Amino acid sequence: MSSTTTVTPQDLADALTALRDKAPLVQCLTNIVVAGWTANVLLAVGAAPAMVDNPHEAGDFAAIAGGVLVNLGTPDDDTARAMHLAVARAQVVGTPWVLDPVAAGALKWRTSLARQLLHDARPTIVRGNPSEILALAGGTGGRGVESVDSPEAAAEVAMSLAGQHESVIAVSGPVDHITDGTRMIHISNGHPWLTRVTGGGCALGALMAAFVAVAPDAVVAAAAATATLTVAADSAAERSNGPGSFAVALLDELAVLEPAKLADRVRMG
Amino acid sequence: MSSTTTVTPQDLADALTALRDKAPLVQCLTNIVVAGWTANVLLAVGAAPAMVDNPHEAGDFAAIAGGVLVNLGTPDDDTARAMHLAVARAQVVGTPWVLDPVAAGALKWRTSLARQLLHDARPTIVRGNPSEILALAGGTGGRGVESVDSPEAAAEVAMSLAGQHESVIAVSGPVDHITDGTRMIHISNGHPWLTRVTGGGCALGALMAAFVAVAPDAVVAAAAATATLTVAADSAAERSNGPGSFAVALLDELAVLEPAKLADRVRMG
Amino acid sequence: MSSTTTVTPQDLADALTALRDKAPLVQCLTNIVVAGWTANVLLAVGAAPAMVDNPHEAGDFAAIAGGVLVNLGTPDDDTARAMHLAVARAQVVGTPWVLDPVAAGALKWRTSLARQLLHDARPTIVRGNPSEILALAGGTGGRGVESVDSPEAAAEVAMSLAGQHESVIAVSGPVDHITDGTRMIHISNGHPWLTRVTGGGCALGALMAAFVAVAPDAVVAAAAATATLTVAADSAAERSNGPGSFAVALLDELAVLEPAKLADRVRMG
Repeated sequence: MSSTTTVTPQDLADALTALRDKAPLVQCLTNIVVAGWTANVLLAVGAAPAMVDNPHEAGDFAAIAGGVLVNLGTPDDDTARAMHLAVARAQVVGTPWVLDPVAAGALKWRTSLARQLLHDARPTIVRGNPSEILALAGGTGGRGVESVDSPEAAAEVAMSLAGQHESVIAVSGPVDHITDGTRMIHISNGHPWLTRVTGGGCALGALMAAFVAVAPDAVVAAAAATATLTVAADSAAERSNGPGSFAVALLDELAVLEPAKLADRVRMG
Repeated sequence: MSSTTTVTPQDLADALTALRDKAPLVQCLTNIVVAGWTANVLLAVGAAPAMVDNPHEAGDFAAIAGGVLVNLGTPDDDTARAMHLAVARAQVVGTPWVLDPVAAGALKWRTSLARQLLHDARPTIVRGNPSEILALAGGTGGRGVESVDSPEAAAEVAMSLAGQHESVIAVSGPVDHITDGTRMIHISNGHPWLTRVTGGGCALGALMAAFVAVAPDAVVAAAAATATLTVAADSAAERSNGPGSFAVALLDELAVLEPAKLADRVRMG
Repeated sequence: MSSTTTVTPQDLADALTALRDKAPLVQCLTNIVVAGWTANVLLAVGAAPAMVDNPHEAGDFAAIAGGVLVNLGTPDDDTARAMHLAVARAQVVGTPWVLDPVAAGALKWRTSLARQLLHDARPTIVRGNPSEILALAGGTGGRGVESVDSPEAAAEVAMSLAGQHESVIAVSGPVDHITDGTRMIHISNGHPWLTRVTGGGCALGALMAAFVAVAPDAVVAAAAATATLTVAADSAAERSNGPGSFAVALLDELAVLEPAKLADRVRMG
């Protein structure tokens, strides 16, 4: 997966054009808190969400979806089983999938679940905050969660984790870091209100699952998703009075964001 | 159930007046994606939603609810059991109920679940998109899902399905078709943004469960629900900037929509 | 817990200041309808929600949370088990917790669940509407739900229930009543639109779990939560067109509400 190809703003714009053209079917195994919000984010941007998260159907659907999102926000035994089935099938048939290990590190059961999913069926992209990424690395990299906590420190661990698992790792924060073990991209758009709306990070993971269905380079997909959400957030914040109106404006902005504006506004290094 | 009584715009207005007067209790067995949105749509229009979806209580509650919604968006074993219990009780005590067979046809387990619910406890109304209605008919009518896909083609199948099951069938699309096997009503209000907000169709099914609790003629109930949602959507779209602000404005419009305006604006044939 | 200390508007303002300073971690075991809304209300006001509701993790998390919310909106066997584990642990380690017995009285299984939770692990605060509070008292006070139904009548029962269980009882309505068995506080802010948005009461219970994490006197916590939500609702209603825009404005107002304004606007007796 890793390559030395430079990622340009135009690559992100092209990925957004492709997403709008193809309207990829995105299977979401996500949580009860953000399921509706996640579907609305995907619909707004132009993708087709399908929340198929029961063990009877999750495996079969992973074979027809363009991308699969596995988000550990509120897992239970049933959805955990569905997640295992979906990613196993995704791996067999080649459907790209995104792991969002919500609260990994803070809670034992889901940390173990996140590590199993990571090891059993190599995710195309893993998206998390610094603590979550460090928690995933903890067991194998021998580096504790508490020892490092900044996005920059996590980014170093992410680089090694990416190489080891052949996954793209995206570390979210005021500056987002995206790496495939060779390349490292930084994106610094976005607004603090994204952290005052539930599911800001979850929406980002979902967008990555949509973009990875249409962009062959997973680094481009992760970067395009990050840029799309955060550039739209920049615009939404300008016309909002607080987190409530910001969330509404963000959906509006995701729907109208033009690829050229994306390439123009993204601050990528 | 079928009749030759013509449905007039004034019948729809009267149904909305009755809904506001009686504030019917609507039991919703629905999905994790749209549960909150569905409750807000019902509250906005003037109904009283109750999301009772566990097997311990779903049957008992169906006996006291004015209408029951069964929506297959994210079923699992527990909610599927609750659905069977709720509709069995609804049928025994005469509570009208609405089946929304989300994604029937695309997924095996829920297609089978939808067909069982249809056969075991005759729904008062079935609401779906063309593929879902065709999938329900597939097993009995011998007509595959792929062979027809327009609302118009589905409407023909719906007419035969309605007669066979003595249910009202509502096929959603740019033009909505509603039939009891004898009468066929077309409503052509609405806005494309309804398809860019998750739960547009789910909200319609929920509104049908509210209207059928107060309107004795289920064709009138299904038509009144369709007209209420789509006329409110017409108004909401006029003052929205995208899918986010549209969803917010839709709730506002549902709350203020006057029966006289409904009768005036509906495009029904 | 009971005391004769008078509660002043300044106490409520100080509680809001403390909440903003400490950003308490609030574990929510709540329902599929309002999970997202509840998280957004907590984030808006300045708390840190965590929806940990599975039996594997709910107990452990109750030991690290600042406050725990148990809301019976859509319980199932799994979440009911998680609730028992969370409150048992909360009681052992001294984490304050709030019981919101949604629909107790109307439905047998959850009424029994609510009573078990009340008796097994004394909640710090119980919040409900008059029927719910009367239903909880029903088994012990010998007073049926149907015999009384006004907030005022429920308030009397609440006073005795509070003394008996050493819990603070909050009865919601146009006037909110809060008592620890000795003191009785009335708050009369708020707007009817709070009843046209799903989760108005659920949000209040969640805010109580946030405030009780930072305010040692649970009567102050319950009153501060009530005042915060209803004063913000007063402001939100002034710039809304209906329940949709009201819910959005409410989140905005919760984020900007100043402690001094809270003390100034609250109508408390």
